[in-house]
Amino acid sequence: MSEITEIAQYTQAMAERAVLASRELRISQGGQKLKWLLACIRAIKDKQEELLAANKLDLEKAPSFGLSESMIDRLTLTPSRMASIIKSLEGIMTLPDPMGEIIEANVRPNGLLVTKVRVPLGVVFFIYESRPNVTVDAAALCVKSGNAVILRGGKEAIHTNLAFYKIMKNCLAGAGLPEHAVQLVETTDRQAVGHFLKMRDQIDVTIPRGGKSLIERVVAEATMPVIKHFDGVCHVYIHERADQEKARSIVVNSKCQRTGVCNAAESLLVDAAIAEQFLPMVASDLMEQGVELRGCERSCQLVKGIIPATEEDFRTEYLALKMSVKVVDGLEKAVAHIEEYGSRHTDAIVTNDLSASRQFAAMVDSAAVILNASTRFNDGGEFGFGAEIGISTDKFHARGPCGLKELTSYKYIVYGDGQIRE
Amino acid sequence: MSEITEIAQYTQAMAERAVLASRELRISQGGQKLKWLLACIRAIKDKQEELLAANKLDLEKAPSFGLSESMIDRLTLTPSRMASIIKSLEGIMTLPDPMGEIIEANVRPNGLLVTKVRVPLGVVFFIYESRPNVTVDAAALCVKSGNAVILRGGKEAIHTNLAFYKIMKNCLAGAGLPEHAVQLVETTDRQAVGHFLKMRDQIDVTIPRGGKSLIERVVAEATMPVIKHFDGVCHVYIHERADQEKARSIVVNSKCQRTGVCNAAESLLVDAAIAEQFLPMVASDLMEQGVELRGCERSCQLVKGIIPATEEDFRTEYLALKMSVKVVDGLEKAVAHIEEYGSRHTDAIVTNDLSASRQFAAMVDSAAVILNASTRFNDGGEFGFGAEIGISTDKFHARGPCGLKELTSYKYIVYGDGQIRE
Repeated sequence: MSEITEIAQYTQAMAERAVLASRELRISQGGQKLKWLLACIRAIKDKQEELLAANKLDLEKAPSFGLSESMIDRLTLTPSRMASIIKSLEGIMTLPDPMGEIIEANVRPNGLLVTKVRVPLGVVFFIYESRPNVTVDAAALCVKSGNAVILRGGKEAIHTNLAFYKIMKNCLAGAGLPEHAVQLVETTDRQAVGHFLKMRDQIDVTIPRGGKSLIERVVAEATMPVIKHFDGVCHVYIHERADQEKARSIVVNSKCQRTGVCNAAESLLVDAAIAEQFLPMVASDLMEQGVELRGCERSCQLVKGIIPATEEDFRTEYLALKMSVKVVDGLEKAVAHIEEYGSRHTDAIVTNDLSASRQFAAMVDSAAVILNASTRFNDGGEFGFGAEIGISTDKFHARGPCGLKELTSYKYIVYGDGQIRE
Repeated sequence: MSEITEIAQYTQAMAERAVLASRELRISQGGQKLKWLLACIRAIKDKQEELLAANKLDLEKAPSFGLSESMIDRLTLTPSRMASIIKSLEGIMTLPDPMGEIIEANVRPNGLLVTKVRVPLGVVFFIYESRPNVTVDAAALCVKSGNAVILRGGKEAIHTNLAFYKIMKNCLAGAGLPEHAVQLVETTDRQAVGHFLKMRDQIDVTIPRGGKSLIERVVAEATMPVIKHFDGVCHVYIHERADQEKARSIVVNSKCQRTGVCNAAESLLVDAAIAEQFLPMVASDLMEQGVELRGCERSCQLVKGIIPATEEDFRTEYLALKMSVKVVDGLEKAVAHIEEYGSRHTDAIVTNDLSASRQFAAMVDSAAVILNASTRFNDGGEFGFGAEIGISTDKFHARGPCGLKELTSYKYIVYGDGQIRE
């Protein structure tokens, strides 16, 4: 990267190329994008050895960045992970092309046909950390939805990211797509991000995917809209009329199926009417899985081994084998607790009472409200949207899992035959 | 307002009441909102004399604010304007309730039913200038879409706004809706706006409706999403295969039907292939209507009386009987001009060529692309959406006319029967 002497010029030129590419992509056809994805799949398969070698370079440097073991694991490319990257690309290939979809249409009394048509957002600036599959998924989702993308990965994955990027970029021209539809920031200088975040005229949306400090920085500096994901303080509330067997398995799955993810449950609310019977059982299930429970006074009285919780525990996204527990006096108290302590990400109720389930669904203002199932289902793949570029905790533009549609806007195309306004 | 000593406390308390009201509105029913709108209609009819008297107070003070004649005209309430306020409320009443609409639903292979359900955004902060009908429309649209609203009108309309506000507020409780669903900022202190714009945790969206300086201030200071409307530099492009009679009437209507509005045309592009024949005719039509034409070199050569345009003319939203004119060499040049000089608001083509119309619609990235009709049709009412709270020139969240749907978000409600993730 020695030739890059002026980071401001470098980022500016990159953004301008992205704008030009996005104009071409706006009129691209689904077939071109399919052709590109197919070519990417073939090339990634062909170049597996090169990709693994590039990844090895990153892995060698990983200790010098102070990466933890779990971070190194996430960074590591294996043949089976290669296979799942290919599978994800195949999945994106088979999703319907969002561009040009007529979302709504109506004929006005004067004969005008008003259509609302799905169009790309334009240019996406995507910032992410060390998982190698993200480069591939993000490029595929952005181009399939008609957007040019500027990718900025973590420094610890730069060789792997560059290797994937070059393969995908080299397949663009052959498919008739603009060669700058996908660009990767090749410098790891942190200043580059600051420059891009100022470019509200060139970049239509920024999507940060990573830790809280990254997201906070982006929110503070960005001059354009951001699709962002903050905490997932997710609850499971066991209503007095719950099927207790199902409730036990839902709680354990929500907490333990995978702990380091945003849709894992962090807090268990048990209705006072059944707490004496239910809490000891579920606590024993959880403790068997190695979960440390931190509870309110009443739960500590009911179950030996629950540690007294602090106020802060109920606001904490543990991302670990820990869970806060509270006994609540009925549905309204449960909802009020979720309103006060939750993060509006994913909240579940277990109940067989139809009226209670409807009330909970109406009152809880979270991206996903889950009735009688694990919180872990709030996921683009599980919802049937295919790969996701992130999960939004906002209510504006996109909420919950963000796939192809969430990378689009719309315009109105109005068909007339000489109509004028009286 | 003498009792309001601390503007920060006043605005904070107002925002907190709005948040509480929005929680109640979230679970309100369509029938309650209908009842409220009906009560508002009756009360506004009953209190017409009081409303006119309040408006008279504003009109008396208008000269002291230095309002121009056209601004005073906009501020003036008359019995016929009262009738159109009522008509607008009736229109909003008959629109389908957006809350709870199931936008999408699918059953997953594991039996989970995933539904995407329309929900309110939460709390809307709405800032507007002197038209008295806006208080009524904004309150009605926000509450009908399930949002609590904080209204901040112009100081020159404060008596009129207060009078309408009090009537509508007094009808809330009787309909079973929270009494703070609608609040009006009763101080005209400009600091109040600054306080609200900092409240990203309480206010979900800010909508400014007014002049460019207001919008620029809001964009600069707001910490939450903004639905905003900048310039309307709208074009009409006359393709070589246009029906020239229709083209003449569309150009005149787009420019002259009402000049002071964002969807009026500001720039005429005439294809070189027909310029010699068409431009003199349409120029004469426009000049007859008193339009001053400012053109490129070629158009000045073709028509006497066209003033040479500067580069700046082509970027100007005149909002007056002025129009820029350019002769362009074909469709692609027309599109490139619109890309360079337009504001992505409303752009029209007049052509009988199907392929040209499709190309234009695909390539022009504006909120509305109009084929063979007047630019003046880009309007919520004309599109059949009912009253609008504004027109968005953004691509994020909402684009073009913003009615009830654009004031909503969605959440996922997932129906299971004990499903856990493998």
